[in-house]
Order: sequence, then structure tokens, then C-alpha cells
Amino acid sequence: MIYTSDAVNALVEEFSRLPGIGRKSAQRLALFVLKLSHDEVASFAKALVDVKEKIIYCTTCWTFTEQDPCPICANPRRDPSTICVVEEPNDIAALEKTNEYRGRYHVLGGALSPLNGIGPDDLKTKELLRRITPATREIIVALNPDVEGEATTIYLSRLLQPFQLRVTRLARGIPIGSDLEFADEATLARALEGRVSV
Amino acid sequence: MIYTSDAVNALVEEFSRLPGIGRKSAQRLALFVLKLSHDEVASFAKALVDVKEKIIYCTTCWTFTEQDPCPICANPRRDPSTICVVEEPNDIAALEKTNEYRGRYHVLGGALSPLNGIGPDDLKTKELLRRITPATREIIVALNPDVEGEATTIYLSRLLQPFQLRVTRLARGIPIGSDLEFADEATLARALEGRVSV
Repeated sequence: MIYTSDAVNALVEEFSRLPGIGRKSAQRLALFVLKLSHDEVASFAKALVDVKEKIIYCTTCWTFTEQDPCPICANPRRDPSTICVVEEPNDIAALEKTNEYRGRYHVLGGALSPLNGIGPDDLKTKELLRRITPATREIIVALNPDVEGEATTIYLSRLLQPFQLRVTRLARGIPIGSDLEFADEATLARALEGRVSV
Repeated sequence: MIYTSDAVNALVEEFSRLPGIGRKSAQRLALFVLKLSHDEVASFAKALVDVKEKIIYCTTCWTFTEQDPCPICANPRRDPSTICVVEEPNDIAALEKTNEYRGRYHVLGGALSPLNGIGPDDLKTKELLRRITPATREIIVALNPDVEGEATTIYLSRLLQPFQLRVTRLARGIPIGSDLEFADEATLARALEGRVSV
């Protein structure tokens, strides 16, 4: 109970449940909403409800979508011989922005994390294996470069071994635009290891 | 257009309009909403709409409220002889948390800011003068300690001069729990100026 109005307190409560939003930010957001017009608030509320009502999961690649299969899986011009495995739907958006990749995707829904109780059965690994056909040539494992992502990459590469596919991962190295002296040792070591001739 | 789903893009758009929330945070929030249950999203949407439908402004002190006059103005046990002038309704919540103040409030709705085109007519100054009765003894000007707040405090003190009231402001000094060596010169100078005997 911060304010004398229950409606405002309820909204502060809702905002503070969102990730990365503390109590102070939630108060600021609630007071901002108070200053919006009726139409603006109605459109915000509608956007929230719409997302829950319209969004389903693509039963091929497991990204969120409004139609199943999703636009990428349904696109005949996307190369079906390559499948890029990512953790979350968000990662697809990041990869699509590069305009470099023309294959298909597969969303695992996370990475192996025994500490958080996430095992192979919690990820869409079986669904990935089921998608492999004689036409499949390469699986790009594009998971986050952290401990969980690394462990999952190794797990997947073993799982995919019997299929005799090319299994690749994203290159590790110095990010573009950064400064060599600020690169951490692990990144620099990987960059040296993966050096290419010019 | 980040995602293939228009519903998700629309929600990202709505979130990124909120203050302090950039595009990346908006994406993260939208994806978080996707993982909420239908009921949770419905309650969030309802809280938004409720706030706009139920909240009005107290025509005495100009804070937001669900009934006019607001619970503080309607409370006969709040001392009517003291009016604490604040910039925003949020400041009332901060002062109420101290449990120190038992008088009334008056929300100006901001502070004078010629650069942003905010003049005396944009603030509830006339409404403040109208509240002054022979019973009024003290006006506490509790505005933010920035340039706009200072200017507004001086403006208000001149405006209130004819009424022969006690006009006070909040004490300036070193915040509790802070370290002397990290206090800025302006704060330290004010703290010296306002020193009290022990």
C-alpha cells in the first residue's frame, strides 16, 4: 500500500512483477500511465491481451507465431538443408537482422542447466532430431556463449553424431568495434585459437 | 518490425513508449508477457484500464484519487493549519512514509521551467492561494532540490508574502547513511550553513 488509490497500487504491483522492474520504476511507470489518454491506455491493454490470444508456437521450429507453421518455416525460399538451433525466439530476431542466414531455425526453449532443473527433456531436442531428413546437411548450434550454452552445445553435438551431419557453432572472437585491450582473456584466447589467414 | 508476429511487435512498441524503457527492454518485457498465463495478462490489462477509469484528481489538493476529496483531504484528523506543497502526487507517498507529517498537502503539478514552457499558470498556484484561510498557519514548500524547484520555491514565497504565514522549506544537508567525503560541495555548504547546536 503506497498510494491511497487501490487502482494505482494494483498497477504498481503488476509493473513490479515484470523482469528488471523494481518498485521505484513500477511507481514511475504507473504514474506515467495515469498521464496517458484513455485511448493510449486502451491500446496498451489491447496489445497485452492480443499477444496472449493470437500467439501460438510453431510446431516445426517452436518459435512464437500467429500462424502455424511460422512465416520462416512456411517460406519455400528458406534453405531446408540447414537448421540453426537457438535458445529463444528472440535469438531468431537477432540472427535475421544480420541478413546473412537463409536457412531454417529450431528453438530449444533454453539451455541445459542442472542447477535450475532444466534437463534434455525440458528442451525441444527430440523435436530437433525428428526434423532431420536425408536432405539435412548442416546444424548450426547458435547458443549463448555461457556455461549452459557450452554444455548444451556439447550435448547436442554428441546427440547429432549418428546422423553424420556437419555440426557447427558460431565463431568466438573479438566483437566488431571493441578494443583489444579491453577484451577478456577467454575471448582473446578463443580469438587467437580461431585465427584465420588474411 | 522485429518479429514476424504483428501482435508481439505492437506490444514491443507499447512497452518502449514507457519512460526509461528502451527497445531491448521492451523486447524482453514483451517476451516475458508471452510466457505469462492468460489470467495474469488479463489482470495486467485490467489494472491498466482500471487506473484510467477510476482515477480522478482531488479538487482540493490535486493529487490523484478514487474519490473527491481524497482520503487525506477528507480525513478530519489531518491538521488543516499546515499545507505541504509538493510537485507530484508521488512526493506525497514519500512524505507519508516518514510518518512525521500530519497536515494537508497541495500538488502543484510540476515546477516552474521556462525552458520547457512551464509558467505559473501551468501549476496549481491559484488553487493554493484559494485554500488559504485565517486558520492556515504554515506552508511547507517541499519541492525538489534542483534549479526548477529552487526557482519555484522563491516564486511561491513571494506570492505568499501578503498572507503573513509561516513559509518554510525542507532542510538541506547531508543525507542519513551517507559518507561525508562523498558529499558534493553544494550539499556540504548548505549543511554547514544550516548547522545546529548539539
